[in-house]
Amino acid sequence: MKAELLTIGNEILIGQISNTNSVWMAQQLNEAGISVIHMSSVADEKEAILTALADAGKRADLVLITGGLGPTKDDITKKTVCDYFDTELIINEDVLKDVTGFFTKRGREITDINKKQAEVPKGSIVIRNKNGTAPGMWMEKDDTIYVSMPGVPFEMKAMVTEFIIPELKKCFILPFIYHKTILTQGIGESDLSELISDWEDTLASKNISLAYLPSPGMVRLRLSSKGLNEKELNQKIEGEVQKILPVIQKYIYGYEEYGKDQPAMEEILGKLLKENNLKLCLAESCTGGYISHLITSVAGSSAYYNGCIVPYQNEFKNSLLKVNNEVFTKHGAVSKECVETMVKEVMHSFNGNAAIAVSGIAGPSGATEGKPVGTTWIAVALNDTLISKQFIFGDNRQRNIHMTAMRAMNMLRKLILKEEE
Amino acid sequence: MKAELLTIGNEILIGQISNTNSVWMAQQLNEAGISVIHMSSVADEKEAILTALADAGKRADLVLITGGLGPTKDDITKKTVCDYFDTELIINEDVLKDVTGFFTKRGREITDINKKQAEVPKGSIVIRNKNGTAPGMWMEKDDTIYVSMPGVPFEMKAMVTEFIIPELKKCFILPFIYHKTILTQGIGESDLSELISDWEDTLASKNISLAYLPSPGMVRLRLSSKGLNEKELNQKIEGEVQKILPVIQKYIYGYEEYGKDQPAMEEILGKLLKENNLKLCLAESCTGGYISHLITSVAGSSAYYNGCIVPYQNEFKNSLLKVNNEVFTKHGAVSKECVETMVKEVMHSFNGNAAIAVSGIAGPSGATEGKPVGTTWIAVALNDTLISKQFIFGDNRQRNIHMTAMRAMNMLRKLILKEEE
Repeated sequence: MKAELLTIGNEILIGQISNTNSVWMAQQLNEAGISVIHMSSVADEKEAILTALADAGKRADLVLITGGLGPTKDDITKKTVCDYFDTELIINEDVLKDVTGFFTKRGREITDINKKQAEVPKGSIVIRNKNGTAPGMWMEKDDTIYVSMPGVPFEMKAMVTEFIIPELKKCFILPFIYHKTILTQGIGESDLSELISDWEDTLASKNISLAYLPSPGMVRLRLSSKGLNEKELNQKIEGEVQKILPVIQKYIYGYEEYGKDQPAMEEILGKLLKENNLKLCLAESCTGGYISHLITSVAGSSAYYNGCIVPYQNEFKNSLLKVNNEVFTKHGAVSKECVETMVKEVMHSFNGNAAIAVSGIAGPSGATEGKPVGTTWIAVALNDTLISKQFIFGDNRQRNIHMTAMRAMNMLRKLILKEEE
Repeated sequence: MKAELLTIGNEILIGQISNTNSVWMAQQLNEAGISVIHMSSVADEKEAILTALADAGKRADLVLITGGLGPTKDDITKKTVCDYFDTELIINEDVLKDVTGFFTKRGREITDINKKQAEVPKGSIVIRNKNGTAPGMWMEKDDTIYVSMPGVPFEMKAMVTEFIIPELKKCFILPFIYHKTILTQGIGESDLSELISDWEDTLASKNISLAYLPSPGMVRLRLSSKGLNEKELNQKIEGEVQKILPVIQKYIYGYEEYGKDQPAMEEILGKLLKENNLKLCLAESCTGGYISHLITSVAGSSAYYNGCIVPYQNEFKNSLLKVNNEVFTKHGAVSKECVETMVKEVMHSFNGNAAIAVSGIAGPSGATEGKPVGTTWIAVALNDTLISKQFIFGDNRQRNIHMTAMRAMNMLRKLILKEEE
């Protein structure tokens, strides 16, 4: 079954609000085995809506429409839907009772404008709105199902989960879609692609699709397959993951399970620190507190996090973290010597047993002879073991800060797990 | 001029990522006087892309396409665009230099797959990508301009602001839309709305629209008007701003000028610190380094920022910032006494003359008798002057961290400017 999402409303087209309804509906439909093949947003204009309905009908078996059902004058969806289905609006007595009740309950009289909410296209199946006044409407034309819903997220969500998806499951046999996403760090999209190219070539014949989802500091690799037997799909995908593991093991920092949120690096590291009864301390120069922010954005992080020092000038690397002034003159603040001292000293100051120290040139200025913008030294320590490494990221300040944080957390994660760096 | 946004990629259709690119592009185009009439998202499939390109061309004068330009096998946009324009891919030598340079700079060899990034449709105008490897491509067909860009937000954004919008302004007369946005902090949307209600009622007759743009910790108030005379629009809007100033002065921390990015609180504060030759130091408990991260996300912040201590356990508030253990037993770590000592001591440790200290219960756990989640103490200091204040924010951890940071930076800003708190 192919679905299409159509959003009606000027507020999306002027960029005032983000289309979160479509993201949510796409997730729900995909989980129910229904492919979303197209999404569009059009203005509150008759011609634009009519064209969008007709185009959607040509492509999809199911069209979910949101927005434009409010009682105010700029909302014309309902009238336009009537034109499209060549029908007229009639009062639905059940909805009228709902709407009247909605106002009575709040101690208010129902107005003529609100009574119009009870008008629905003749011939439509009404989906009652338990969270608001505008009903949903289910109609069919040329083998395509159209459902029009209000744009208010929690009103729409109740209709989708409580009526639309159960109804579709009653009428159609829907396949399962299984996704598994491998989270990688420390390798770019194109290098990863070359590394797994042979394996990737074998997937299509097994009806598995592979997608690369890059974001700064990481690439997510998503395997998907569709079928009628959930267990078989699961085994097929897990089997393929096992095959490619030996090749990319050193880049994998986690997995995203089907139907669950993507686990962030700071959550994966936090869990590991807690399980191993470790106490983390940070010394951040170029990242300026960003790693500390990520770590503490996880609820419960005080169980494994002791604190951070951000010495944003060399004199405080000296006074607070005992980096000798000789280091700055001989090697510079962006050096192995500097981060190694920082990591040892911060572990001492915060009485911890796991630590990260970073020093780099985030940019745009600060480059020196032999050290371009993006040059970064990272040291991680676990009890008496210390590893340090130099990286050259890029030109963009925000991206350098983010990449340094991701890489540093992953280095510590690997050190704890004794994985190859 | 009518524009349409087309996003290519399965990750949007399966609800894996939110389409933030379209929100941003819609804002930019609207501000430039270009109406966005349609947005759509289609899969990485040849037929779907071809149909979408043709449909868009019928409706719009400008089609901005994002996504599908990566070097990997699932990205087919470039080939399909060639089919649509009946042309072929050729190597662009400038782009090849860019791509080669991108890898050389990172000490890596360019691979064959990456060389493909330098292929562009013959006849297209190339938009070089200074933040990545995939170039943008500008093409025209039947009076419609099509621009294809990579989907990585910061690569796309640089192309839109630095090339596409300036180029369109050169070629077309676009109506002038004048916006002025007042940035407020410390008052909620509904209270603000009551405060300015009389003034707001007078705006419609002057063809000025007012929008409330709330985000955690602040409300932006945007006045807009459209016309062909830039000077007239400017005077009209500035006149209205002057009228409402006396009523909301104490909540205003800045303005967003037409066509410029919203100045962040950390930029406004940073500028002020620099102008007054001040050196900032931070002691962050509940915000866990977030304020330090915001301050250092501004390029050039090392001119006015000395550093930060994040003492995430009480023992380090004691050992590093000399908060007496008696304070914890008598008043708790979330107290006036605690933050006042922290702010004085951190100023001393980092040898600065401006400082912020915060301690609070970010949640979800940590509430105590009389101190619900959200309770936060903030102290700010400037030379020998110190102000501290208690706030009770909300239940949400991320929001509490953000609100504390905004409020704390604004308190210091007001102290420097001797404004009423």
